[in-house]
This record gives sequence, C-alpha cells and structure tokens, in this order.
Amino acid sequence: MSGTRTEHDLLGTLEIPAEAYYGIHTLRAVGNFPITGRTISSYPELINALAAIKQAAALTNHDLGLLDERRKDAIVAACEDIRAGALHDQFVVDVIQGGAGTSTNMNANEVIANRALEHLGRERGEYTALHPIDHVNMGQSTNDVYPTALRIATIHGVNTLCGAMGVLRSGFEAKAVAFHDVLKMGRTQLQDAVPMTLGQEFTTYAIMIEEDQKRLAEAILLISEINLGGTAIGTGIAGHPEFPERVCTHLNRITRLGLLTASDLIEATQDCGAFVQLSGVLKRFAVKLSKICNDLRLLSSGPRAGFNEINLPPVQSGSSIMPGKINPVIPEVVNQVAFEVIGNDLTVTMAAEGGQLQLNAFEPIIAHSLFKSLTHLVAACLTLEEKCIRGITANTAHLHAMVTHSIGLVTVLNPYIGYETATEIALEAHRTGRGVIELVRERKLVPEAVLESVLSPETLCRIHGSDQHLERSHMD
Amino acid sequence: MSGTRTEHDLLGTLEIPAEAYYGIHTLRAVGNFPITGRTISSYPELINALAAIKQAAALTNHDLGLLDERRKDAIVAACEDIRAGALHDQFVVDVIQGGAGTSTNMNANEVIANRALEHLGRERGEYTALHPIDHVNMGQSTNDVYPTALRIATIHGVNTLCGAMGVLRSGFEAKAVAFHDVLKMGRTQLQDAVPMTLGQEFTTYAIMIEEDQKRLAEAILLISEINLGGTAIGTGIAGHPEFPERVCTHLNRITRLGLLTASDLIEATQDCGAFVQLSGVLKRFAVKLSKICNDLRLLSSGPRAGFNEINLPPVQSGSSIMPGKINPVIPEVVNQVAFEVIGNDLTVTMAAEGGQLQLNAFEPIIAHSLFKSLTHLVAACLTLEEKCIRGITANTAHLHAMVTHSIGLVTVLNPYIGYETATEIALEAHRTGRGVIELVRERKLVPEAVLESVLSPETLCRIHGSDQHLERSHMD
Amino acid sequence: MSGTRTEHDLLGTLEIPAEAYYGIHTLRAVGNFPITGRTISSYPELINALAAIKQAAALTNHDLGLLDERRKDAIVAACEDIRAGALHDQFVVDVIQGGAGTSTNMNANEVIANRALEHLGRERGEYTALHPIDHVNMGQSTNDVYPTALRIATIHGVNTLCGAMGVLRSGFEAKAVAFHDVLKMGRTQLQDAVPMTLGQEFTTYAIMIEEDQKRLAEAILLISEINLGGTAIGTGIAGHPEFPERVCTHLNRITRLGLLTASDLIEATQDCGAFVQLSGVLKRFAVKLSKICNDLRLLSSGPRAGFNEINLPPVQSGSSIMPGKINPVIPEVVNQVAFEVIGNDLTVTMAAEGGQLQLNAFEPIIAHSLFKSLTHLVAACLTLEEKCIRGITANTAHLHAMVTHSIGLVTVLNPYIGYETATEIALEAHRTGRGVIELVRERKLVPEAVLESVLSPETLCRIHGSDQHLERSHMD
Amino acid sequence: MSGTRTEHDLLGTLEIPAEAYYGIHTLRAVGNFPITGRTISSYPELINALAAIKQAAALTNHDLGLLDERRKDAIVAACEDIRAGALHDQFVVDVIQGGAGTSTNMNANEVIANRALEHLGRERGEYTALHPIDHVNMGQSTNDVYPTALRIATIHGVNTLCGAMGVLRSGFEAKAVAFHDVLKMGRTQLQDAVPMTLGQEFTTYAIMIEEDQKRLAEAILLISEINLGGTAIGTGIAGHPEFPERVCTHLNRITRLGLLTASDLIEATQDCGAFVQLSGVLKRFAVKLSKICNDLRLLSSGPRAGFNEINLPPVQSGSSIMPGKINPVIPEVVNQVAFEVIGNDLTVTMAAEGGQLQLNAFEPIIAHSLFKSLTHLVAACLTLEEKCIRGITANTAHLHAMVTHSIGLVTVLNPYIGYETATEIALEAHRTGRGVIELVRERKLVPEAVLESVLSPETLCRIHGSDQHLERSHMD
Repeated sequence: MSGTRTEHDLLGTLEIPAEAYYGIHTLRAVGNFPITGRTISSYPELINALAAIKQAAALTNHDLGLLDERRKDAIVAACEDIRAGALHDQFVVDVIQGGAGTSTNMNANEVIANRALEHLGRERGEYTALHPIDHVNMGQSTNDVYPTALRIATIHGVNTLCGAMGVLRSGFEAKAVAFHDVLKMGRTQLQDAVPMTLGQEFTTYAIMIEEDQKRLAEAILLISEINLGGTAIGTGIAGHPEFPERVCTHLNRITRLGLLTASDLIEATQDCGAFVQLSGVLKRFAVKLSKICNDLRLLSSGPRAGFNEINLPPVQSGSSIMPGKINPVIPEVVNQVAFEVIGNDLTVTMAAEGGQLQLNAFEPIIAHSLFKSLTHLVAACLTLEEKCIRGITANTAHLHAMVTHSIGLVTVLNPYIGYETATEIALEAHRTGRGVIELVRERKLVPEAVLESVLSPETLCRIHGSDQHLERSHMD
Repeated sequence: MSGTRTEHDLLGTLEIPAEAYYGIHTLRAVGNFPITGRTISSYPELINALAAIKQAAALTNHDLGLLDERRKDAIVAACEDIRAGALHDQFVVDVIQGGAGTSTNMNANEVIANRALEHLGRERGEYTALHPIDHVNMGQSTNDVYPTALRIATIHGVNTLCGAMGVLRSGFEAKAVAFHDVLKMGRTQLQDAVPMTLGQEFTTYAIMIEEDQKRLAEAILLISEINLGGTAIGTGIAGHPEFPERVCTHLNRITRLGLLTASDLIEATQDCGAFVQLSGVLKRFAVKLSKICNDLRLLSSGPRAGFNEINLPPVQSGSSIMPGKINPVIPEVVNQVAFEVIGNDLTVTMAAEGGQLQLNAFEPIIAHSLFKSLTHLVAACLTLEEKCIRGITANTAHLHAMVTHSIGLVTVLNPYIGYETATEIALEAHRTGRGVIELVRERKLVPEAVLESVLSPETLCRIHGSDQHLERSHMD
Repeated sequence: MSGTRTEHDLLGTLEIPAEAYYGIHTLRAVGNFPITGRTISSYPELINALAAIKQAAALTNHDLGLLDERRKDAIVAACEDIRAGALHDQFVVDVIQGGAGTSTNMNANEVIANRALEHLGRERGEYTALHPIDHVNMGQSTNDVYPTALRIATIHGVNTLCGAMGVLRSGFEAKAVAFHDVLKMGRTQLQDAVPMTLGQEFTTYAIMIEEDQKRLAEAILLISEINLGGTAIGTGIAGHPEFPERVCTHLNRITRLGLLTASDLIEATQDCGAFVQLSGVLKRFAVKLSKICNDLRLLSSGPRAGFNEINLPPVQSGSSIMPGKINPVIPEVVNQVAFEVIGNDLTVTMAAEGGQLQLNAFEPIIAHSLFKSLTHLVAACLTLEEKCIRGITANTAHLHAMVTHSIGLVTVLNPYIGYETATEIALEAHRTGRGVIELVRERKLVPEAVLESVLSPETLCRIHGSDQHLERSHMD
Repeated sequence: MSGTRTEHDLLGTLEIPAEAYYGIHTLRAVGNFPITGRTISSYPELINALAAIKQAAALTNHDLGLLDERRKDAIVAACEDIRAGALHDQFVVDVIQGGAGTSTNMNANEVIANRALEHLGRERGEYTALHPIDHVNMGQSTNDVYPTALRIATIHGVNTLCGAMGVLRSGFEAKAVAFHDVLKMGRTQLQDAVPMTLGQEFTTYAIMIEEDQKRLAEAILLISEINLGGTAIGTGIAGHPEFPERVCTHLNRITRLGLLTASDLIEATQDCGAFVQLSGVLKRFAVKLSKICNDLRLLSSGPRAGFNEINLPPVQSGSSIMPGKINPVIPEVVNQVAFEVIGNDLTVTMAAEGGQLQLNAFEPIIAHSLFKSLTHLVAACLTLEEKCIRGITANTAHLHAMVTHSIGLVTVLNPYIGYETATEIALEAHRTGRGVIELVRERKLVPEAVLESVLSPETLCRIHGSDQHLERSHMD
C-alpha cells in the first residue's frame, strides 16, 4: 500500500499516508506539537487503557441501543487488537501536547475506526461506514476519556512499582537477617551515638519501603475514581444518562480493576487532586530512597579514610584515572532518579495549580511526569536490589572495635551514675583517648555485675524488638 | 528578683538572669541561633505538647519506681502550669535552630525543673534537688521527645485546619444552594464549552475541600505514631523496657489523643515520612485553594471588559490612583498563602531528604514550615469565607444571555445531527454571529419537540445529580 | 563481522560484540544503568564535545612529547569522524547513570580508541597498540572531561535557544507594529484599569524575551569556565603542569568557542554553580513564557463569553464532542514545557546540593535536566511563533468599545477633579451603567478642551514612548 | 490623646483611633488580611524606601508646579522623620496581603499625610488640608510605588548580605592560610581519591562565596531598574510626562543608590523577572552554603567512628541523654536556612508565574519571601563564621597518616607504569592491606628518584596554584 488518502476537518483537508491507521486530527497534532520527539506509544499502558475504554463504550452504546451490532463488533475487535499489542506504532502524537489530551483521544478514535473498518471489510478513511467521532467516540469526550485512561494506566504503573518495591524490601530484609548480630555504632547528627546492630539498620530501610507501599495502596483508591460518562464538563451533555454506570461495569470487566464512577462528575472532570496526591507519595518514596542511598554511600565510604562499615559489590571500574577505585555507582544512579522524581512532582504541582474552571488543560504533562516517575522508580528499585543490596558485606571486626572504643557507651550508665558524672567520664575519655568503661571501672562507679549486664548486646540494642517486626512483616 | 545565678555545662559556666526559668543550655542556644528573632513560644501547641510529654514521663518514671513522689508531683505541677498557659515566655530558643531540637528539649527541661523547684520550695538552679536532665528528662532523649512533641502539636494544628476548612466548605455549599438555578456557560481551556449552573460550579469547590479534609484525616493517622521511649536512636538505651508503652498510655490520658507507639522505634526515630506526607497533603490543598481563587478572580473579572459573571463583595478601595476600582484582594491573599505553602513543602522535602543514618537533624525547620503552613491556611480559609464567599452575588441575566447566545449549545444536538453537521452549524454561527438553535431550526434538522426537551436546563446540566451529592455530603 | 572479542577490567572479562566500537567499561555501564532506555547519543552536542576534548588532549599530549605522532593522528582522525556525525550510535550508556559521568567518558575513550585502531590498521580491542585510557584519556580524568563536555554542549544548546528566542521575539515585535494603534483596556488584578494599546501589550512580551536573551548571554560566561587539566580533583595529579592552558587553546581552536581555564581547578571541579545559575535563568524564562501564554489564552477567551480581544489562529479541531470548538493548544503546550523546565530546575538544585567534598557525583542528571530544558524550550519558542503568534488577529472594534465604556477612563481626570470626586463619578457610572465621560460632561467638572486633550490615545497611552524602545531594540 | 476620629472611603466610614497616624484604608486592610500576625514594620528598609519615594515624589511635584511649597515641605519633613526611624510602628498591615501592595502604599500615604498635617499644625484626618492620595500619592500609583520600594529595600538587603558573605569568606580564607600545609586525602563520590591539602579545601569554600558575591552584584543591576512614574500600568496615565526622570534623580539623591528608570515602563510594571533572578541567585548561594555545611559535618564526623579530619568548636551540649556528645549545630542551622531559602525561591517562582496581564498582584509574597531569605542568610553567614569556622582545628597527624596509607597515591604513578599495572598494584594493596608505594618499590617499577619527586606535597597537590588565587583574591 502506498500513496495517500484525503481527509478533512474544520480547517480543510490533508493528505494522510494510505497505510496510516491514524487520520487528519492526529496528523494536525503531530505538526502542532514537535516538542520531545517521543510519542505516546512509549506509554503502552496508556494506549491499552484507551482501547479498553473505547471497547467498553462500544459495548455500552450497543446495550443502550445507540450502536448497531456490526459496528460494535468491529470496534471491539479493533480494541482487542490494540490491547494485544498491535498498532501501538500508530500512536504518534508527542507526549507533551496542548489541548488537554484531545489529540491523544483523537489518535485513538482514528486508529480504532480505521482498524474497525478493516474488520468490516472497508477501506481506511471510509468514515461514513464507521466514524471516529460519531461511533468510536460516541457518548464520550476527551475530557472524560483521557483522564480515565490516565487513571487506568497509572494504576498499572503503581502496581508494577509496588512489586519492584517488594523486591527491594526483601533485599533489605535478607540483609537484616544476615547482619542480625553485627554490633555497630549508631550515629546521630553524624556523631558517634550509641550501639545498635547492622541488622537493625537494614530493617529500618525495609520498613520505610513497606510504609510507602501502604501509601501507594491508598493513593490507588483515589486514582480509581473515574469520570467516564461526564463528557465535556461532567454534566454528561450529549450522553445517555445510564452511560456512566454501565460503561464502568464493562470497563471493570475488561480491565479487571475496581474502578468507581465519581459521585460528582463535574468535580471529577476538573480536579487533578488524585494525581497530585499520587505524585506526592512518589516524592515521599523518592525522599526515602535518596536518604537510604545517601546512607549506603556514607557507610561504605573509604576504603581507608572513610566509615568503611560495609562494602558495596563492585560493578564497574570507578575511574578513568585512579586505578583500582570503586565507586558506589548504583546508589548514585538511584539518588539521581530520586531527584528527577522530586522535580517531576513540582511539574505536576504547577500543572495542577494551572487548571482553570471546568477543566485542567495540562493533564498531558501531568501524565508524562507521572509515567516517568513510575517507570524510573521501578528501574531504580530493581537495579538497587540486584546490583547493590544483594551483594553488600559487612566489615564486622571494624564495626565491633568501633563500639568497644566508643565514648557513647557511657550513655548506658546514665541511670547509674547520672548525666553530670557521665559527662565527666566522656570528656576524660575524649581527652586521654582511653575507653569509657575502663574509666568507669577504674573509678569503681558501677558494680561489675551491672556493667556486664548493661553492656550485653541484647541490652544495648534491644535486638529482640526489631526481630519481632521482621517476623511479623514477613507474614503480611 | 534581680541579678544572676551561675550554671555550668560541659563548656564552663554562664550567668543566668535570676528571674529566668530557663538555664544554661537554653542560654547557649539563644546565643548560637540568632536567625529569625522569633522564639518557639510562637507555637503554643508545641510548648503544651512538651509539657504533656514531660508530665507523662514523670508519671511513668514514678510508676516504674525510678522517680520519687515529691519530685514527680513537682514536675507534674510545673507541666500543668505550662499547659494552662503559664511561662510560655520562657521558651526563648529561635524557631530555626541546629541540634535536632535538643535546645527546645533542654529549654523545656530547664523551665520545668525550675518551676518544679519552686513547687518544692527551692530556689531556681538548685538542680541537686531536682535536675533538668536526670529527673525531668529521665528515660528520654531529644530524639524521642522532640518528634513526639511535633506530632502532638501538628495534630492540633491539623484539627484546627480541618475545622476552618469546614467553615469554608459550608460557605461554598451555601452558595451552591443559592445559585442552584443560575444557568451559565461552562468553559474548558478558557473557551466557551457547554451550559451548567453556577450552583454546580460552587458545589465543585465544596467537594474539593471535603476531599482534602479526608486526606488530612488520613495523614493524622500517620502523625499519631510516636517514638517516645526510643531514647537516643530508637533502641531505648538508658530507658526502662516498659517505658514506651506506659508513657504512651499516660500521654493519651493527658492529651486525649489516640497516639500509638510505633512498632519499630529505630525506624520511627529517623524517618520523617509522616511529615512529608502531611506536607504533601497541605500542598495538595494549597493547589486546590489557589485554583479556586484563580477561578473566583476570573469569574469576577470586569466590571465591563471581563467575564463579569459574579461579584465579590468589596472590602477596601482597590487603587491609590484609579478611583472606584475594586480588586479581588481576598482571593489574592489566599493565592499567596498557597504559594507559600507550596514553598514550605519544598523546604520540608529537602530537610527530610537530608536526614542521615539514625536521625534527621533538620526537624526544627520541618516543624517551622509545617506550623507556618497550618496556621496560615487556617487564616486563609476563614478569611476567604468571611470576607469573600459569603458576600458573592451573581449577574444572573448576563449569565443566562451568554448561554442563549452560545455556540456550544450545539453539542447537545450531536446525537441527532452528527459531529460533522454540528461542526458546520457551529462554524456558520461563528461566521455570521447568529445563534446555533436558530440555524438548526432554519434548516429543520431536529424536530421542535426534541429541541425543546434537550434544551431544558435539567437535560443540559443534569442538575439533579449534583443535588444528591450535596444532600448526601451534608449528612456526613 | 560477527561474533565477539574478549576484554577485561578489574572485575574480570566480558564478551564484546565484535562489531562494537565501545568496550568492556561501556558494556558494564549498560548493564548497570537500565533506567530510561534512552542513550547519551540522544544528545549529539555532548558526543561532539567529548570528541573535541579528546582531540584537543591528543594534540596537547603530542605537543608535550607524551604521545607519539601516529597515535595522535589516529586519535584526531577518530575524533573528527565522530564530530562529523559518525559512530554516535556507539554511545549507548543511559542518560541517567551513576558514577559522575565515568561511564560516558569511558564510552568515549573506547569508541575513539577502537576507531583510531582502525585508522592504524589494527583490530578493535588491540589496546596494546592504542589504549582507551593510557592514550585517549591521557592527562585527563572523568572529573575534568565530563564537566567540560557538558559545558561545551550546553553553550551550543544555549546559543540555539537564544536564536529561537530571537525568532519568537521578532514575532511579538511584528505584532507590536501591526497592533500599534489598537486601543484597548489595560487590566490590573484582572479588573479593568486604564487604556493602553494592543501594540504596547505585545511590545512587553518582546522586551521580556530580550531581557532573558541577555541573562542567557551572562550565564554563558559562567559556563565557559572549564576545569580541563584538573584531572581527578583539580590538583592536576598525573597530568603535565602545562596541560590545562595548552589544551584550552587547542579546544578553542577546534570548537571556535571562548572557553577559559578556571583560575582554581579544585573549586571548578566540585562546583556546579554555573549549571545552577543557567538552570535558574531557564526557569526565569519559563516563568515569563508561561505568563505570556496565560495572557494569550485569557485575551483570546471566548468566543462569546470571554475577553474575546484577540484570535489565535486555529490549528486543529478542539474537541471530540463539542463541534466547531477551537482551543488555544499552542500556548497550552508551551505552558506545559514551562512547567517541565521549572521541575527540571528543582532536579538540578537538588543534585547540586547533593555534591560532596571534591566532586558532584550527580552531574549526569544535571546534564539530562538541562538538555531537556534547552531542547524543549527551543521547540516551544519556534512552535509558539510559527503556529500561534504569527497568525494572531485583533477584534479592534470590540477592544475600542470596551475603552469607551470603561470606568477606568476617569483616572485620567484625577489631576483635574481629585481622587474623591473621581471616585463618586466611578461609583455612579457603575451603579447606573452610564459612561464616566458623559457624567463628567453633565456635571461640567472639566472644560471640554481639556477633556478632548486628555482623552486622545497619545495622552492616554503615551504610545510614543514604547515606539522608541522598539526602534532602539531593533537596532541592537 | 484618646477616642477616635471618623474617616470615609468608597465603602462608608470607620472609626480610627485618634492617636493613629494610619487611616481608613490601612484599617480596612488590617481587618482584611489577618494572616501571619506580622506587620510590614518588620521590614524597616521597606518602610524607609516608601518614605524616600514619597519624599522624592513631593519634591518632583513641587518642581513641576503641581504641589505648593508648604505641603511639599510638610511631606518631606514627615518622610525624613520616618527615614530617621520614627513611626515605623504605624505600618500595621500584614506582610502577606492581597491587593498588589495597595494597602502598603495606602498605609504609607496615610501615615505620611497625618505626620505632615502635624508639621502643618493641623489635626490628623484633616485631609482637605493635605490629602493622602491627592498630595502624598500625587503622580503615583501603588503599581509603581510598591515595586520601586521593594527594589530599594532589596538592594539594601543584598548589600548587607554581600557584607556578611565577605565576613564568611574571610573566615574561610583565614583557615585556608592556617591549613596551607596540612596534607589530606581528597575524595570523590565519598571514596578515597588522591591527596590535597586542607588549605585547598577551605580555599574552595572561599571562592564559592566570592563567586556568589559577584552574582549578587549582577542581580543588583537588574533590581536597580525602577518603574516609578509609570503609574497604573506603565503608561504614566494621570502623571506628568517629566515625572519619571525627575523623580529618579531626586530618589537617587535621597537614597544614594544608582537607580535607573526602566526604558519601557509597561514591561517594567508587570514583570517580576528581576526578583526571580535575584531569588535564583539566593537559591544558588543556599545550595552552596548547604553543600559546604554538609562537608563540614562530614569532615568533623566522629569523634572515633567517623572521618575525624577537623574539629568544629563546641558551642553547646549536644544531647540530653548522651553525656559529652558534641554536635555540629551551627552547620546544621545553616543547612536549615538553606532549605528555607530554596523553598522561598519556589514561592517566588509560583508568584511570578501567576502574574496576569498588566500587573503581578502577588508581589507582597515575593517581597516577604525575598526579605526572609536575605535576612536569614545574613544571620546564617555571620553565625557560621563566628561560631564555627573561626574555631575549626585540624587533626593533622591523622590526616597525614591517611594519605600515607592511601591506595589513591598510585594515581600519581599512572604516567610511569600505566593504568593497568597501577590497577594491579591497587588491588593487591586493597587485598593485603599494604601500601601502594611499598609495593611499587618492591617490584622496582619506578626509579627511587622519580618516586621521591612525585610524592612531594608540591607535586601531589600543586599547592602553588591555589596560593596564587588566594593572594589575588585578597587584592580584589
């Protein structure tokens, strides 16, 4: 097939490549938005979601007696083709686009119409037989289709992320078990504080991730409220009154999700609050992920002039000039993803704030930002677990020596000798370089039996407590 | 009382004003942090929360046999004095301070100790009788006291905000009822779209606020998890194993809140996730509030060369040069609070990301940012309702005329005449300045009975639907 | 060519595809950073800059007697191949990568070495003949090569942007001329204020852009300071003392830029201030661009229930449900680019703040963010001019009528009747719907001759003044 | 004086406290904006700037024959009173206010009018004798007065900051001299890299600050362009054509600044670009300050389980539970100021983006954000120098030992033994714990004379180079 076909819109006519499934509205948009060079086909979940919506709409319109069986079947078949992975390359509009997603919706309408025409044995462009707008878009508007598609695609993205977070969390949990007995100095404000175990340190990271999995699960509930059937501004104009509830039922059957029709479609059409909330949770996770990576880089600093507590597995040469240098490149790349996600959250915030009256015209950049954050966080979690956490080893002897020589040990004696005497001991230890326990023994400030009891790792670190958590969280 | 008393710490001695309830640690901090000139006494809920914690700790330590009855009673009495509003002027440390809140905790320890000494009939500074650290701070560390106090103060702040949001929401709901029948053009992308009612527009604002009240209620659950009893890094070093659970019980009795001890105190000590989440929700609310104020300013633009749909009540002269000019100053001030809250959220984000290892040293700026956001949002909500929403009136005739003359009306005929014919009608109306219904009638495209039915406000706007929401939400 | 060759590094060996120009360090990095799926080849200016640096370094090392002529010639030839566009597809590392750019530098070293080996008639991988590190990277470190390459690529990006801004500015200037005489109401706080011309409004946009072109020119000066020759941390370790100055001379000859060697290479190696500054200026431009697009969307709101002052050229159908609707899709897409740029600035800020000690490990995300901002802003400027500004028309009659009927006209009479009387007139006009001039005439408050003089467009708008600016700025 | 006087505006009348110098417009504003509880009097430079503008305007109006001598003299006397520090407590409007600064301008007009009336021997409120608007505000509008006042106040704030930065920079320079010979390991990506001196490290900080002083000097140039005389929207309506140039001359004489009238007053009235630029530079400085403080905290980590390279002077007890603990509280408080400044920059960004058409109504929050950033940064710089930098000591022996035992030393031998052999040496050193130089000697890879030469501190660190900078920069 070669050559072109002619299509028209309110601006006139345009030649469309004959083999193209998209049509004039898509081609206009391609010309209008030459921003990133990246097309919406790079978000396959979005394309699949659009197809699912169009399929559910066709079924609903048929149920309501508005769409005949042949057209319905053709549209459904076209949508199933797309959901099976076909024709994604026909979604050619730029990811950053004006028009509140109209061009994305039009792209879907046109591709589905032309594929459905094929199923009907017709030529592409024979829109009198099956029309992209009158039939494929029947009872819908960009303003309900596009946000609904974003929500469906986002739910899939969040679910994938939760899975990746689970992998990372398991990685930390495995290390928490492996390092269960490794005594080390805890630090506050980067200063030596009191003892703990390396296992407790890694347990903390596992719990942080677990907490964010819960926050994401909450965010999904908000994302699951759709406005499909609200049409242009949520009043349902030009749509059948039963359309919203019926289409949601079909859509849930197709997507196997638990979508709900929002109780007020006008509010649901203009409000981007659910995306802001989700982006905020992704930002929260990015903040924690960055903090964890900062810690990992700090704990593995050295090898000789640093903390030197743990060793990250080497994954590549670290330097083109310093032979043998190994760098914490995996945490570093994760830090950078975190910074990107935090920046994306600001983009989402500004776009949401910019909404006016009955619609937010800036949903495409919200979508683009969220999709980037979701996919990059997935990659970051899996990479961090596989290339880094899994291979971490501990410098146990060094860690133990740091505890023995620490001044912070004196804290455990506070209840026995009081804060002021303990301060004197600490200052003397600092001045002389001697050990605090040695000084306490010398001054006979505490009976030896008490000393031995309070200096046991169990007392020092309350190891037992965090064990229980791990066991419990493994059972979730 | 005049002159000074001498106190000492690990750096040496300092003269303290004799009448001061605070002591040497506080005075050092005052000298060290001359940043804003604003003291922590400007956050009374924080001071009260610190007193509640110290009171609960004294009761717990007494229960555990670690603190004698006289000292316990004196400490409790001092804390109750503070919670009744006394001595707040003795909390003199700057709101922005280094040291992870140590100076705030020390300030509380010293004021309470010296007030308790008074109750014991002793002089200020007689710390051998009752010591700020050994007795008032017994079993505690800044690292569990300070975050717990922030959480308690924050819960009060959030509850106050939810109340103010309720007032604002009621304001919008009242207008939604008043404007129930006022037909107007809805707009998407600032272009005339399809009809709706002004009541629907205001209902939307009410729902947006309602949604955020729910998000805040969720955020409070996270904030309610405290780490009191974890002491220095969450291992509970130097503390009694039963302290955490017991002190929480006392604290709930004193504060009448539903605080819970976190299941892992090490994680709870270092993680600022709950504050990031709360700040994210405040940001979300700020985004919506800003969007609403943008809409109000747009809808009231004019009086002659603007949208001129509604009138905001005049509250002051608008200009020092343009006579008679009235400006939307109340929405404008709310926009600015929103911008501040969004900036504060970034400060919280950066501070949370900067946490290292077992502690986040930057909680004071997190606290300062959250308290500012909370109190300014309360003021913004109440001011917006009282000075603006309450007095809004509608230009009903103008609004109705805009619907009658609109091109967007043709949308309702899509199902009858198809998108392409409807587009032709729209373009002709645009070109000739004529009405779309007039043109449809002229061409006899739709039977008159159908026209009349679809052009009724009920059909155009589905007014019924949003009524139900309002009724239901009023019943919550 | 098929099969593989074996290469080794400090971790062991790896099979490299025989046809690949990159080597083991690159392949490790590809495996380590599977984040975005987008390779550094998407930034051709960066690849060219790396080649220019390696070429300058080979020439310098030859001058210094450290590199023999044959190897030098081979390296130079390979670099020129790349700078002519060849082998860009061999730059396969992800744009988001850990390791402070080491993998990007290694990728360049390997591709250039293998291409140079070809020029020497050798096989790929014969590194004893010409080594990626010992010869191609001689006297260099990632820590001076990578930032220098970013700076060169960024300068090209900024120059391209300045050109695109010039196109946009000319677009606004052309409209300023076309609308020179079109009287309209100016607005402050969205309320009708006093008269101006539409030409003045568009002149303002031109000047805003001109200002930012100047800021970018300033930012380029900072970006032009390079640290090449500082090697690992800026001390020049393992490098020849004369290398920095000599290589800069070669590099300027090759790139035709005015690069300068920073006066302190240690500071220059760790500091990202120039990138933060540039990003700040891009943010500033984004803020203005967004403000301009907000204005354009507002001024073209309607067609019947809006401001309806100007018409943006239609570029596509606006709605899948509302026939004949035209939306301001071009300003909308530009707004979204602006929001993205503002988000990118936050990413740059966080990455810069995260630098530690002698290096900022997060330069790759800084680079990625800046390159995105630069290229998307170029697209936004050109698209805005071509698809929107160029085709804007004014609704002159409507604009003029708004001035005639405005209340704000009374401002011009302030000096004659005083603020309080003028306020009375304004309130009466508002109450009665009558014109202020009519009321002033009725009350005979001002002689007719004065009225006529102050109501002339020249007096009202001081049109003359802004003309001068335009003329002057055209002469720059 | 007690009781009240009655004033009126377009909304009716209000009772003003008889002793108040402010009037009805101010009182309305106090009631309308109960946001922060903090009044504009907390920014004395802003109050002084307003007085300077009103004084210059009175002189100009007198020159132009528009204001009689007695009134002129009275206004000038009132303004000089205020600029001498009087009546600042009469500036009672909230720092966060709607209305684009109108209430601040009105507050100034009223206080000056009533004080001028006193000078004329009249009662407060006798506005027929001298009117706040007709006389004090003559030829002006809030929209030119307020931004001009912000600019003047900001210039003073920036100058003060530059001074404080100079103090901090001198502090770093003094340490750079003191630590000139202290050899230490440099680090990249937190891993041991190659040697440098502690003096070089501190020189870097001094240069960073010097760079930002230059950026601020550039930003002041932008801030110095004023729009006074543009009146309502920049067209100069109701003002005398010669007013702008003449008032600028008077204003420069009064303020001793080099203010310039912007070439296009319409652009200058609506654009906040100069504030965005300044805020961006403050953000840039905050980023660097935070990075420096992060480094200081890292280098002083320990005392036993950290880097332990330098000692920050102790300024207070670090913990209420860990005796003898000293924390880096001064860098910590500076980090927090930096986070606040970065948040403020976002607030400024959003406010600037929100400007519409001929005015930005959100300048008050821009002012508030900038003033906070400026004053807190001043406090941060001075505190950091006085309480921290000045007292820093180095652990010279430990630092030297780290260099001797480092693996990174092998880098210096790259040119002699090649990257691959050097890598083998590094790995063996790492595996065996032995020194790299020892291994090189053992294998006789490099002649002893070469070894000695390249291992000298001068060769390792190129100390000479950075000396030159310091000397040069001291001469600036």
